[in-house]
Amino acid sequence: MTTQEILIQARQTKTVLMLADPARRNQALFKMADALLEPANRQRIQNANDSDLQAAKGAISDVMLDRLLLTKERIQAMADGIRETAALDDPVGNVLSETVRPNGLVIRKTAVPIGVIAIIYESRPNVTSDAAALAIKSGNVCVLRGGKEAWRTCHAIVQALQDGLEAAGMPRTAVNLIEDTTRVSANELMTAEGYVDLLIPRGGSGLIRSCVEHATVPCIQTGTGICHIYVDKEADLSMAVRIIENAKTSRPSVCNAQEVCLVHEHIASRFLPMLRQALCENRAENEKQPVELRLDAQAATLIQGTPAKETDFDTEFLDYILAVKIVDSTEEAIEHINAHSTGHSEAILTSNAQTAAQFTSAVDSAAVYVNASTRFTDGGEFGLGCEMGISTQKLHARGPMGLAELCTYKYVIHGNGQIRP
Amino acid sequence: MTTQEILIQARQTKTVLMLADPARRNQALFKMADALLEPANRQRIQNANDSDLQAAKGAISDVMLDRLLLTKERIQAMADGIRETAALDDPVGNVLSETVRPNGLVIRKTAVPIGVIAIIYESRPNVTSDAAALAIKSGNVCVLRGGKEAWRTCHAIVQALQDGLEAAGMPRTAVNLIEDTTRVSANELMTAEGYVDLLIPRGGSGLIRSCVEHATVPCIQTGTGICHIYVDKEADLSMAVRIIENAKTSRPSVCNAQEVCLVHEHIASRFLPMLRQALCENRAENEKQPVELRLDAQAATLIQGTPAKETDFDTEFLDYILAVKIVDSTEEAIEHINAHSTGHSEAILTSNAQTAAQFTSAVDSAAVYVNASTRFTDGGEFGLGCEMGISTQKLHARGPMGLAELCTYKYVIHGNGQIRP
Repeated sequence: MTTQEILIQARQTKTVLMLADPARRNQALFKMADALLEPANRQRIQNANDSDLQAAKGAISDVMLDRLLLTKERIQAMADGIRETAALDDPVGNVLSETVRPNGLVIRKTAVPIGVIAIIYESRPNVTSDAAALAIKSGNVCVLRGGKEAWRTCHAIVQALQDGLEAAGMPRTAVNLIEDTTRVSANELMTAEGYVDLLIPRGGSGLIRSCVEHATVPCIQTGTGICHIYVDKEADLSMAVRIIENAKTSRPSVCNAQEVCLVHEHIASRFLPMLRQALCENRAENEKQPVELRLDAQAATLIQGTPAKETDFDTEFLDYILAVKIVDSTEEAIEHINAHSTGHSEAILTSNAQTAAQFTSAVDSAAVYVNASTRFTDGGEFGLGCEMGISTQKLHARGPMGLAELCTYKYVIHGNGQIRP
Repeated sequence: MTTQEILIQARQTKTVLMLADPARRNQALFKMADALLEPANRQRIQNANDSDLQAAKGAISDVMLDRLLLTKERIQAMADGIRETAALDDPVGNVLSETVRPNGLVIRKTAVPIGVIAIIYESRPNVTSDAAALAIKSGNVCVLRGGKEAWRTCHAIVQALQDGLEAAGMPRTAVNLIEDTTRVSANELMTAEGYVDLLIPRGGSGLIRSCVEHATVPCIQTGTGICHIYVDKEADLSMAVRIIENAKTSRPSVCNAQEVCLVHEHIASRFLPMLRQALCENRAENEKQPVELRLDAQAATLIQGTPAKETDFDTEFLDYILAVKIVDSTEEAIEHINAHSTGHSEAILTSNAQTAAQFTSAVDSAAVYVNASTRFTDGGEFGLGCEMGISTQKLHARGPMGLAELCTYKYVIHGNGQIRP
């Protein structure tokens, strides 16, 4: 089917999903999970994945190949994920506020599904089932457009999910997979006005940039994270070392990993050697990948490391690299962050509550931490139970997007003949 | 100053506004109101308005000239509006939700200002002070770009508002007026990434369309309203006539006025003559402008009127014109509305609660009414106390945008050394 044909059928399915009650949507989710685990489906998914892996070998990195790989356990985890989504609180129909006006009008602001949500993603096949589950749970039709390396796998997964939908008496077209994996289909989704109510690009900065420039449908930017941790002069320095090692090295390839460390000049000469010891020497001794420190001029007078270029403070390394800068005050730290951050996650490490409050008020990012690792910015860790991505924009959703963020609202107003004077 | 220079100073002012406490923001609003009424300022505004009116005469319609005109009373009303805004509940800093996680992290979702809000509007000078007041109240810097016919007036108003800001010890650059009133500055605002956090176009469909196509900054579409009223077979027909006359004729030029009437076929032969009597004959007799009825083929067999063209069901007339169509069921009414509406406001008139529920669930618009006029879609009428425009999109804000919709949120997380396992 062409992308246009798929979009037409997605739009036609919107009202069915919007009107399905919670029990029916949950029933569909359970059947979708069952269908994934059904032996014939599972075999088809596995075969498709084998073909994808064969075709991709040599063309993409080993890390990417591992992301693409589906094992029995990973398929089980996908099914478990769908069931967990079913168990979450239902977001649809919640009355967010209710007012009775002096003229007797009763105005209820009510959470409702957005409609058709399109998601552009890359090669992780589990995104297919995660995104579909979140969409169905929140009463939305989804249009999925995965990476070309994973197409056969995604297609087999969507077939299984659609079997589940059908078994629950829901339209197969509640979950749709775009067949074209070229740039053409991405552009079609970006400009599918009247068809796509929300576009979520999940991928590299190139994709996000392209959406910002070309999308005429509503779009939520996700994921780019140049996250800062500021070590204040009143920080607990050993706690600071622990938090920074966690934020930098526990999973350097993800968006909530730390990229920049700002250090107050008063404690820099004590703290930086501790940091270097932990991130470089100790890790090397323990056969862990040491962190490359990119130091500004002042930091370079205190410890050894690579001299930082200016661009190092505007780079999402996604690697064992940390840019380090000395600042003379919390104000300078705040200013640097607001000028260089992508608005994802930042932290201050300090024992001074007033300094912490100054920082959390003035730093203009989705998540602002006091004495904790930036790695916690995640739907699960925030208690949302799930996540469709992490928004770095300010409209509609900021930070981890859970089910509530996949809804909009409408005003439902009951009267008995009121007219406006 | 160039637009770029103005944007730079706006961005620099953002943190001051973000950190100003409610008392300080309210103080600024009272001083802004005082400054508008200060005799010398008032005179300057009046003189500027005279010049604008002189220059515009002949170039714009009488309706537009009236919108442009400022009288003593209108300036007083602007000042009153600012004071009323000050009296509203403060939207900034509200904790929208609070969670304590098993690991001890305390996560607070907190309402915060958006940052820099740019508003593109047309020739009504009072929008200048209304928008500025709402921005300051919600802790935002505003960048105003009015229509060229009103530039001198807007400039004089902004000068006065800035005097007020200064008197309250706030930066004058919290309220900014773009000096260039050509298309160039509108395009600069649409693409001012990193400077404009939210763009609100308030104007005709050409402006909105241009924003959808060219804006790379977050943007909220406002205002276009093709509003429907559906008269169900179980409607109280005299109530229906009253509501429709109100929705169509009380102010035909506004976005919440009715444009299309859908009538259930079972009551059409009784209802349409009543409607025609009220909207055409009676109004003509009372020397009120009668409504031109544009009838679909079936309605045309029942009453006299203009034959409707297909485009009449996709047109925002903003005039004494009503398109009329017969439908065979509530389902057909819903389908027609979801296919042709702009998602603004729709109503069902029925005494059957179940039919009403079916309609309010399935109609995908910002405001869905039962037995009331669509004219109530308005920040003031909804009890928001004010309004920056009426959003017809689904992301972030839907329907009237009050102070809450001029805020975003951030997560503020307090820990004591937590790292992610």
